[in-house]
This record gives sequence, structure tokens and C-alpha cells, in this order.
Amino acid sequence: MYDGLKGFTDFYPAEMAPRREVIDTIEETARRYGFRETATPALEPAEMWTDKSGEDIVDELYDFEDRGGRHVTLTPELTPTVARMVVARQQALSKPLKWFSTRPFWRYEQVQQGRYRELYQTNADIFGSSDPDADAEILAFAADSLTALGLDGSEFEFRVSHRDILGELLRSFDADVDVPAAVRAVDKRAKVDETEYVDLLVEAGLSADQAREFDDVLLAGDRDRSALTDFADSEALAAAVENLEAVLAAAEDFGVREYCDVSLTTARGLDYYTGVVFECFDASGEVSRSIFGGGRYDHLIEAFGGQPTPAVGVGIGVMNSTLPLLLQVHDAWPGEGITSDYYVLQVGDTRPVAARIARELRERGHVVETDVSGRSFGAQMDYADSIDAETVVIVGERDLEDDEITVKDMASGDQTNVPVEAFPGDRERPTDDEFAQ
Amino acid sequence: MYDGLKGFTDFYPAEMAPRREVIDTIEETARRYGFRETATPALEPAEMWTDKSGEDIVDELYDFEDRGGRHVTLTPELTPTVARMVVARQQALSKPLKWFSTRPFWRYEQVQQGRYRELYQTNADIFGSSDPDADAEILAFAADSLTALGLDGSEFEFRVSHRDILGELLRSFDADVDVPAAVRAVDKRAKVDETEYVDLLVEAGLSADQAREFDDVLLAGDRDRSALTDFADSEALAAAVENLEAVLAAAEDFGVREYCDVSLTTARGLDYYTGVVFECFDASGEVSRSIFGGGRYDHLIEAFGGQPTPAVGVGIGVMNSTLPLLLQVHDAWPGEGITSDYYVLQVGDTRPVAARIARELRERGHVVETDVSGRSFGAQMDYADSIDAETVVIVGERDLEDDEITVKDMASGDQTNVPVEAFPGDRERPTDDEFAQ
Repeated sequence: MYDGLKGFTDFYPAEMAPRREVIDTIEETARRYGFRETATPALEPAEMWTDKSGEDIVDELYDFEDRGGRHVTLTPELTPTVARMVVARQQALSKPLKWFSTRPFWRYEQVQQGRYRELYQTNADIFGSSDPDADAEILAFAADSLTALGLDGSEFEFRVSHRDILGELLRSFDADVDVPAAVRAVDKRAKVDETEYVDLLVEAGLSADQAREFDDVLLAGDRDRSALTDFADSEALAAAVENLEAVLAAAEDFGVREYCDVSLTTARGLDYYTGVVFECFDASGEVSRSIFGGGRYDHLIEAFGGQPTPAVGVGIGVMNSTLPLLLQVHDAWPGEGITSDYYVLQVGDTRPVAARIARELRERGHVVETDVSGRSFGAQMDYADSIDAETVVIVGERDLEDDEITVKDMASGDQTNVPVEAFPGDRERPTDDEFAQ
Repeated sequence: MYDGLKGFTDFYPAEMAPRREVIDTIEETARRYGFRETATPALEPAEMWTDKSGEDIVDELYDFEDRGGRHVTLTPELTPTVARMVVARQQALSKPLKWFSTRPFWRYEQVQQGRYRELYQTNADIFGSSDPDADAEILAFAADSLTALGLDGSEFEFRVSHRDILGELLRSFDADVDVPAAVRAVDKRAKVDETEYVDLLVEAGLSADQAREFDDVLLAGDRDRSALTDFADSEALAAAVENLEAVLAAAEDFGVREYCDVSLTTARGLDYYTGVVFECFDASGEVSRSIFGGGRYDHLIEAFGGQPTPAVGVGIGVMNSTLPLLLQVHDAWPGEGITSDYYVLQVGDTRPVAARIARELRERGHVVETDVSGRSFGAQMDYADSIDAETVVIVGERDLEDDEITVKDMASGDQTNVPVEAFPGDRERPTDDEFAQ
């Protein structure tokens, strides 16, 4: 007997059914916004991450040497791949590009609830617009996805920050501060104690006093952006604050401002983010970890050898992420288990008729099973129960002598004899109710 | 600039759209047959293949040592994984199990058209039935998928063989013949010349004369099964022939016998197959390679440490397989490219109204884009063209002073002014036609 790998999940049908509903809902929302589906490789050259993505993700790569001697990696996230694709066809594609896809990624990290080594995301990205409307459309798509899943607007919140505000504030303390390292420190703020947080900022080049002052300014800025521009006289900082306000104003027009709280200490871990970044949290606090996040990454395409192409996106964890936990906490998780429209039960040698009925019901779009194991009446009834069949159509040798079959409603137990040639006839979804008098 | 890996395909939206249609059609067919979706790991312990699957697939594994020192592999096919899953919950799951999934697999092989190192399959398997009806239901699902894709029954054929017939015939020559090696030789029959084919059979333990006689018997058996039972007096052979005939009889009742040709030299490459195996081919011969295949594998679950559990399945290559070639040859390939229902064009500072209209159209289920780049009228019109928008809703500052917007049909060029508060109103899909007089 073999065991699957730790951190990798087998999804059986009963567990997959609600996850398929969730993914379909998110993807349908993406399609309505005009995001177009792509499909992308699981394996990429490892240097696409080792060159740009920051040490946190590189430590978690599933990288190896393939049979051709290439240093390859299972992709830990989508962004570098779509950046590569944009560069490869940058002349042919008319901007903005709006792409989405749902697929697994792989990170060798500590396994805990809602965090696995094989994780699934629906990513949606807009390439070719630096306009605040693009950031706001990503927020709107994400919020619409959650409300389409049945969440109330009071049950989640987007904590919105801005990488340029963080960067310009840091530089106002000291032009030589290691901004990526300081931003990674801010990203860890909620996960470490205050001393460690300050130490991390000190390692990045601030003094301990500056580190505390920086944190105070961020919190003041959450309540009132003028606290930021009052603190440092910098055109770049003023522009970053203005950009954040413009994104929030667009979010207002898009009907999703109410979900957004400015939270400048929300930094996101990856190095390539530039402007607005955000993370979604459970407003009730019951799920304490981030649900998902996204943001702007205006320089990545250029860093990949392309023309300057601003970009913004979001990656919503699905399947085994914190999203199912959020939906469960707020009673929005679709029911687990499988359901069926019909089971066509065979008694004796009735396969030609049963097969004809199953086929005609399937042609009407229904989920229909019939016996493929030569089993007894009782065993077939048990099986029909196990697949939660709504209606059982019993095709029995004796009934057929009278040119009849039996239609049984599994919820009520009611059943009615029906002429075999009248079933299904021209009915779209024949049930016992239609035949019973 | 980075290049993706050889043998791995980037699917851009225009290429993905027809592939999504194909996958949706196959999956919808699977659902109607009562196959239930599963999702499964990309990475598994390598010994799940190195122990059982035969040397051909082992030579092509993307295997490596992970950061925890485990010998792991990217999965080259689904079957061992679902076998592992069946074993893990064999008590809890009520049989037969009918599972499907669509996902990528990875094989380090020579790249050619329709054969890539990252390949995608929709797999459908039935566990827990040894009945010929189960084999026939797999054939029926596969045939219905192809006709649902728009193929005519004359455009594809299933070449049906039987591993036990091959095995029993081989043993009738010599009890010590290496059956798996001889079956692999048969699988290579169409790809090598006759001398090499005979050599491979000789390596497996037949004499050269026996090898030629064996091949003659197979071809005679295709035309008339009594040629097989006449050749060798073996109860096991007679049972295998009877099983093949029973599967064909069930296929008749299921309406798919017409697609099936007995072709005993169709062997399939993997060692774990037992009874009926089959491959789908282009009936016109224009696509010369196999489109997809499947078969019965009754001993794999037991070999994985489970209770004896018969199984039969099919893996239909999608995305970049030979299936798109087959559909293209027979004019059944969905159109490439992207389409949209609406583009909401903004002229001047009209975002609140444009956003309201876009939102209401999306709520009706339509694919709707609007400007997220602050672009000119002309640039927006070009973009609306590039996404093949059916209707453009023009929200202009001047029109809004008269409380009007403009609805433009992109095919005809006709456009009509409409009161802004009447759009979309209670219309499900408002177009220029509805407003024009």
C-alpha cells in the first residue's frame, strides 16, 4: 500500500463537489469581467524565480535537474509565467490583457490547516494599464466573487496598502535602507513579536527608534492619509498617496469601496509588487490568516525583458486554502456529497430497454446511472441511495411483459407504473409526480 | 527574456477558448454518465510507477529527490493515483465508483505534433465492476464525447483488443513466454518494421516461426473469433473470447457497437492492463497516430495493497493531444479567438454611470468589459473590436447632459440613443435592435 505525499491532498468526489461549485462561481465572475482563460506549464526554468521573486519563495521551490540537465522548478505561483507569456507576444497582443486561470502550484513549506504543499489558485491579472481603474477592477472582481459565493459584505474585508507609500516612507528615514528587506519585515509584522519586528527593520537599515516611528506613521496613515504627507515632504510619496486615493475612488464607483480598509502594514511577501497591494481577511476574525491577496507589479514584465507593461492581479486560493474555512465559518460552504437525477434499475435481462431510457435521459442533460455490475434489486437500490438519486426508474422483466416500467420518487417513496414507450417521451424531466394520479 | 521549457505549451486566450469548449463537452458527457469529479496530486512517490508500470513509462519519469529526501515523481498518468485512493478508502466507498478528472501529466519524451512533455487528459474510470457492461459504458462515454464534440460516427473508430486473449495465445505457444514483453512488442507493431517486430517477440520467448504464426492468428481473430478458439484449446482463452463478445454485445445495447472494430494487435503499452483494451483512431487515417485509449486493469488495486477490485477506464488526451488534430481534420474544431457581449465605452468623466451599466449587465450573466486604461474613444473602439464585442454602450459626457447613452451594434454599425435610466432596465440582453425604430 502506498501513501500520498505529505502536504498533497486527494479530493474524492464528495469533497470535490463543493470545491467545483466554488471554482465555477469564481471563474464565471472572472468571465463576466472579461478575463480570458489561459493554461500554463507546471514546470518552468528555475531562474524565473531564483532571479526575481525574493528569498522566501526560493527557499520553498520544488526545483530539480531534469533528464536534459536543465534546472527546472514546479511553479510556486503564476505571475512570472504570465509575465513570460506577455513578453513572448508583446507585439501581437492588444492591451489591456485580462487573463485568468485555475491551477495548482507547489511550495515546500510547513503544512498546516489551509496551507498545503500543493495549493490551488484562481489567478486574474490585467496587463497594460497603470490606471487606478485597473487596480479597482481587480478588487471588484475579487469582492464580486465572494458575494457570488454567498458571503455578505460584512463577512470579509480587503486590507489595502501601497508599496510605494511604504518605500517612500522608508527612504525618507534613510536613502540607503534596504526597502525589499524592510517590506518583508512589515509583511511578517503580524506573525512575530514586536522585538523581532523591530530587529528585522533594523537589519534593513533603520535605527530602532526609526523603526518604531515608521510603524506609528503607518498606523496613523491608515486613519488619515495626511499623516503620511505631513510626515515626509516627498513628491513621490504624495503621488503614491494620491494613487491609493484614486484606487479607492474607483472602487467606490465600482461598488466595492465598502469592503476596503486602508491597512498600510499589509505588505505582501513577494518582492515584485509596486503600487497597491491588498489582502482579504475574515471580518469576524474567526479565520485569523489571510484568505488571499494581490496587487500591482509594474516592473516585472520589463525585468523579464519586455517593454514597460504595468500589471495588477489577484490570486484567490481555492480547493484546500483558507477560503473554504471562511465559507464554512459564514455558512456559505456548498454541501459536500454527490447527487444524481436518475438511477435506472435493471431486474433480469432488461438491458436494451434500460440502456435506451438511460441514453434518452442523458440526452436531456441529466445525471443518470444504471447497473454496470449485474447486481440484485436490493444492492441497486442501496447504490441509488448512495448516489442520492432523485428518481429511480425500475425496468423489470415482469413489468416489461405488460410493457410497463416503474418510476419511483426516492424522497417520498411514491411509485407509479408507466407505459414503457411513454418514458421519457417528450418530457424534459419526468418524475413520479407527473405520472401519479 | 526567458523561454518556457521545450515540450511545455503556453495556451493564450484565443487558443484556450476552443480547448475549454472541448473539455467542457467531454466533462459534461462524463457527468451525465454519473462519473464524479476528483482532483489528485501532481507529485507522488516515484515507486508507484517504478514498481508496476513497465519500463516504457519509467524511462520517461520526471522524478527527483525532494527537500525531504523523498524520491518523488511528477505523475505521468492517473491510474496508479486513483488506485491508491481507492485502496485508502476501500471500506467507506460504495462500489462501483465512477470517477473523472481533467489535469496535466508529464512524460520526458520526444516532442512531436500532438505529443508534448506536458500532456492533458480527461480520465474516466469505473472501480468495482468486472461486468462487461462496465467496459461497454467506458466505450459509450468515449463515443458519446466524440459525437457531442460534433464528430460523425464514421469519422472515428475504436480498435478493441483483449489482453487475456493475447496472453493465453502466447502461453499456448510456450508456457514460459514473457507475456508483458510480448504484449509490449505487439503495442510497437505499427511503429517498427516486421523484422524488428519478430525480433521483439523472439526476445519475449517465441521462436521466429511462432511469432509469425501468432501474428497471423491475431489477424484471423479480428475477422472471426472462432479462429482463436480453434487455434488453441484453452478454457482461459475461451473465457477471454467470450468476455470480449459480451463487451461488444453490451456496446450494441448502449448504441456504440458501430464504432468498435476488433483489432487484436492493438495492445496498449502499459503492463497493468488485463481484459479489454482499446484505442481510438481517425477513421479517415489522416491523423495516423492513436487519438486516445483505455482498458481494463483488474489487478492493480490488489497490487497496491487493496482488496481485489476490478477496474476499467479511459484517458482522453485534450488540449495539445491528437484529439484537436482529429477535430480539425473533420471540421469539428471550435473557432479560436475570444468574444464578448458588451464593451462599455467611456468618454470624459463618466465612470460612475459606465460602472453602473457594466455591473448591471454582468449581473445578467454577460461578458462585459469597460475602460480601465483611461484611453481615447478611438483606442477604446479598437479594443472593443479586438475582443469581438457584440454591442458597444457609449457613455459620453455630452450625451449624459441629455440623460442619454448610445447603443451601437458592432456587426451592422447601427447605433441608437437611449435614455440612460432605461438601460439596461428590465431587459435581459439589450441590443441596438431593441431600441432602433
